[in-house]
Amino acid sequence: MAQKITVLECGPRDGWQNLQQILGTAQKLRYIDGLFACGVEAMEVTSFVSPRAIPQMADSSQVARYCVERYPDKRLFALIPNFRGAQNAYEAGIRNVTYVISLSESHNKANINRTHEQSFEELARILNAFPEFHICIGMATTFGCPFEGIPEISRVVDFVGRIEQAGVHELYLADTIGIADPRQVRETIAAVREACPGMGLQVHIHDTRGMGLVNTLAAIESGVEIVQSTLGGLGGCPFAPGASGNTATEDLVYMLHRMGYETGIDFDRLLALSKEQRQEVDGIYSGHHINIAAKSSCY
Amino acid sequence: MAQKITVLECGPRDGWQNLQQILGTAQKLRYIDGLFACGVEAMEVTSFVSPRAIPQMADSSQVARYCVERYPDKRLFALIPNFRGAQNAYEAGIRNVTYVISLSESHNKANINRTHEQSFEELARILNAFPEFHICIGMATTFGCPFEGIPEISRVVDFVGRIEQAGVHELYLADTIGIADPRQVRETIAAVREACPGMGLQVHIHDTRGMGLVNTLAAIESGVEIVQSTLGGLGGCPFAPGASGNTATEDLVYMLHRMGYETGIDFDRLLALSKEQRQEVDGIYSGHHINIAAKSSCY
Repeated sequence: MAQKITVLECGPRDGWQNLQQILGTAQKLRYIDGLFACGVEAMEVTSFVSPRAIPQMADSSQVARYCVERYPDKRLFALIPNFRGAQNAYEAGIRNVTYVISLSESHNKANINRTHEQSFEELARILNAFPEFHICIGMATTFGCPFEGIPEISRVVDFVGRIEQAGVHELYLADTIGIADPRQVRETIAAVREACPGMGLQVHIHDTRGMGLVNTLAAIESGVEIVQSTLGGLGGCPFAPGASGNTATEDLVYMLHRMGYETGIDFDRLLALSKEQRQEVDGIYSGHHINIAAKSSCY
Repeated sequence: MAQKITVLECGPRDGWQNLQQILGTAQKLRYIDGLFACGVEAMEVTSFVSPRAIPQMADSSQVARYCVERYPDKRLFALIPNFRGAQNAYEAGIRNVTYVISLSESHNKANINRTHEQSFEELARILNAFPEFHICIGMATTFGCPFEGIPEISRVVDFVGRIEQAGVHELYLADTIGIADPRQVRETIAAVREACPGMGLQVHIHDTRGMGLVNTLAAIESGVEIVQSTLGGLGGCPFAPGASGNTATEDLVYMLHRMGYETGIDFDRLLALSKEQRQEVDGIYSGHHINIAAKSSCY
C-alpha cells in the first residue's frame, strides 16, 4: 500500500503575505476553494498579524471564518504571532494555530521583537487561555540563521525539548533561509525523533538554493509525514530579495506521485490552478512545472 | 575522509548550444579558463556537429585545440554525432568523446535520424577507426522519452548490456526531459550496476521539473561518482520551450560541499563566474544561487 504524505499548503499565508500586491478577499477564497477542490487536506489559511505590519493579511478573520464554515473536515491552520492574534483566531473559529519561535534568538528578535523567554511566556499565556487550541510551533531558522549561521544539532534537540516541556506536541522544523542540506535534515530529524519521540514533526522548507525537493524528501525518508509547500512556490526570503520562495506544491506532489507516495491531490488540477495564479498574481514563482508549456511533448 | 565526486561541467556543450545567440570563441575560452580556474576537473568542451545544424558549435575545432593544448591534465570530452565528427575531434586532439544514442528509438530517430542499428553500426566504425578514443555513450531518454513515456528498467539494463557488448566501458544515463524521480534513479542504477558491474556510470540530469538536485543526489548515493551539470543551469529541453535546463553546477557544488563531499571546486569563484555569465549571456538560468543577492544576509 502506498505511503500517505500530507502536503500542507501554506501559500495563502506564506505565499501571499510576501507579495508586493494585496490580493482581494474574493480572489483569495477562489484559490482556497480551488486548492481544496484539488484534494488538499491541510492548509495554513491566513495569519492573524497586525494589518499595519502585513496589510496582505488584513482580511484574516474573513478568510478564516469562510474556511471554518465551509471546510469543517479539513485541517485548517492560522498563524498567530501573539496573544492578540490568538484571540482573533479563536473568535474566527480557528482551532489549529501556528506560533513561530526562531531557534536563533537574534532572528527571533529581528522577526517578532522578542527574546526566547518572552516568546515562551506568551506561549504559556496562550496555552492557558485557549485550552481548545491545538498549537503547532513554527521553529524558524532550525537549519540556519542569517545572523548566527548553521546551528549545532544538539541546540535543535534542546530547543525541541523546551517546546515539549511547554506542553506542545507538534512543531515544524523550518528552513527559513533555504540553507539546509539533505544530510543535515536527516541527522537533525533522527536526533529530534530520538530525544522527543512523542513530538509530531512537520517540515517547512524554502527553495532559496534549489534544495526544496531534496530536503523535503530527506525529511519524508526520515519519517516526517506532513510537509509544507506553497502553490507555485510563492514565498521568498525577506533577507534575500529576488531569491526563490518555498518548495512548490505542484513540483512536490509530482515527485511524490512519481515515487509511489499518495497525497490525495489531483496533480493536473493543481498545476492548472498554479498556472492560473501565475497569470493573475505577480510574484516570484519557484515552481518548475508552470514553465513547461501545456502542449509540450515533455509530458 | 570526504568522498570525492567529480562534477563534469557540460555547459560549454549542452548549455551554449541551446542559446539563441552564438557566443564568440574568445568569450567561450574565457569562461572555459574561468571554469578550470575554479577547480573543474572534467568538462565537455564542445560538440563536433554540423555547423549548419548547430551554428553555436561552429568553432568546435578551435575550442577543442585550445583546451587540449592548455589543459592536458584535465579530462576533456567532446560530443560526436557521427564518424565525421569523430574524425574532426580526433584531428583536434580530443581523445575522450561522447556519442549519443537514445534508449528510445523514436527519440533516436527524431534527434539524430538513425535507427538503433544504424547508431550501433556507426559506433562500431568509430571504435574500429579510432582505437585511441575513450568513448562514453550518452544514453539519452534513459528515464523517459517525450514520445514513448517512462521505460521499464529491464529495457534500460538490456540496452546497457548492448552498449557493453559493443566494446564501450563508460556511459552516462541521461534524463533528457527531466522526468526521472529519485526512486527510479536508485532502482535503475542498482539494476544496471548489478547486470554490468564493469560499466563506468555517469549521470546527466535535467532540471525541467525541479528534480535536478534530488535525482543527482539519488545517483551519487547509488554509487555514481561522476555527475554532469552546467554553469548557471543553462541548457533546456527543445521539447519544452521555456522549461528550465540542466542542473546548475553551482547549486550542485554547494549542496555537495554542505553534505561533506569533496569536488575540488571553489564555490565562491564558481558563483561569481556564473553571475558574470548571466550578465553577459541571455538564456534560461535554472540556477538558484545566482538569484541570491551578493550582499544578502542569506549567506
